[in-house]
Amino acid sequence: MNIQIRKAEKTDCAVMMDLIHELALYEKAPTEVTVPFDHFVESGFGENPVWWAFVAELTDENDSKKIIGFALYYIRYSTWKGQRMYLEDLIVTESMRGNGIGMMLFEALIATCKEKNLHGINWQVLDWNIPAIHFYKKLAGVKLDPEWINGILELS
Amino acid sequence: MNIQIRKAEKTDCAVMMDLIHELALYEKAPTEVTVPFDHFVESGFGENPVWWAFVAELTDENDSKKIIGFALYYIRYSTWKGQRMYLEDLIVTESMRGNGIGMMLFEALIATCKEKNLHGINWQVLDWNIPAIHFYKKLAGVKLDPEWINGILELS
Repeated sequence: MNIQIRKAEKTDCAVMMDLIHELALYEKAPTEVTVPFDHFVESGFGENPVWWAFVAELTDENDSKKIIGFALYYIRYSTWKGQRMYLEDLIVTESMRGNGIGMMLFEALIATCKEKNLHGINWQVLDWNIPAIHFYKKLAGVKLDPEWINGILELS
Repeated sequence: MNIQIRKAEKTDCAVMMDLIHELALYEKAPTEVTVPFDHFVESGFGENPVWWAFVAELTDENDSKKIIGFALYYIRYSTWKGQRMYLEDLIVTESMRGNGIGMMLFEALIATCKEKNLHGINWQVLDWNIPAIHFYKKLAGVKLDPEWINGILELS
């Protein structure tokens, strides 16, 4: 399988948004994706980007390319640890899971942290998402901490 | 009691760091605060700030001022909701709790979201921190979601 991990480009956004919807459906929250597409694109590729991403691109036997997953992050600030990477989404499309693509994306994130002098990565996983938990447990040094509750206030 | 909520200034950082240590002790993680003080200051007041804060300042009968709490946030990016406020720390020093100061700080955050066109606030609270959970439950519209597990990877 010919898979390349590369930085996301503006033209990848439409396929990325399809994958975001796929993940939201899997996470039983299909109606929760309310961000307008233009806002998503502008937030990643406008004058002041607030997110960055790697995409996993599959090249088939006809040299046709297709994005089958991505990892999207932003920089967070921890008053305990300083600037860190926050992994907002790690997605591999369902039919392509189990091929090590998630691990390739995660390795690109670790390399980016080293480049940018970020001393750690944080993320969240749903407590019933056993395949994802299993994936993270395979990564050396990962700690999973169930002790925190998310607080959310929606403002109109 | 004469309490004023105002934006944090660079000269507030030392007292804020004392309060961060106080909270870490309360959260049973006193050795987890490893961010160097200079990095903390630079991240809030350098060329490219990544955090912002409000402080609660008490003026006593001798007109002497003292910071007794703060709320510190950064801007996060949600692929479901777009740009949001992430409340990293909401701290009121122990002796001053129960006076509505946390609520005054939270109201300043809500006003900031409206100014900056951020459509919501996210944060985390420890599942055994009953006084904090009780506080958040008093805020109209707040949802507390225990379904997510935190993933952490420390990189040296």
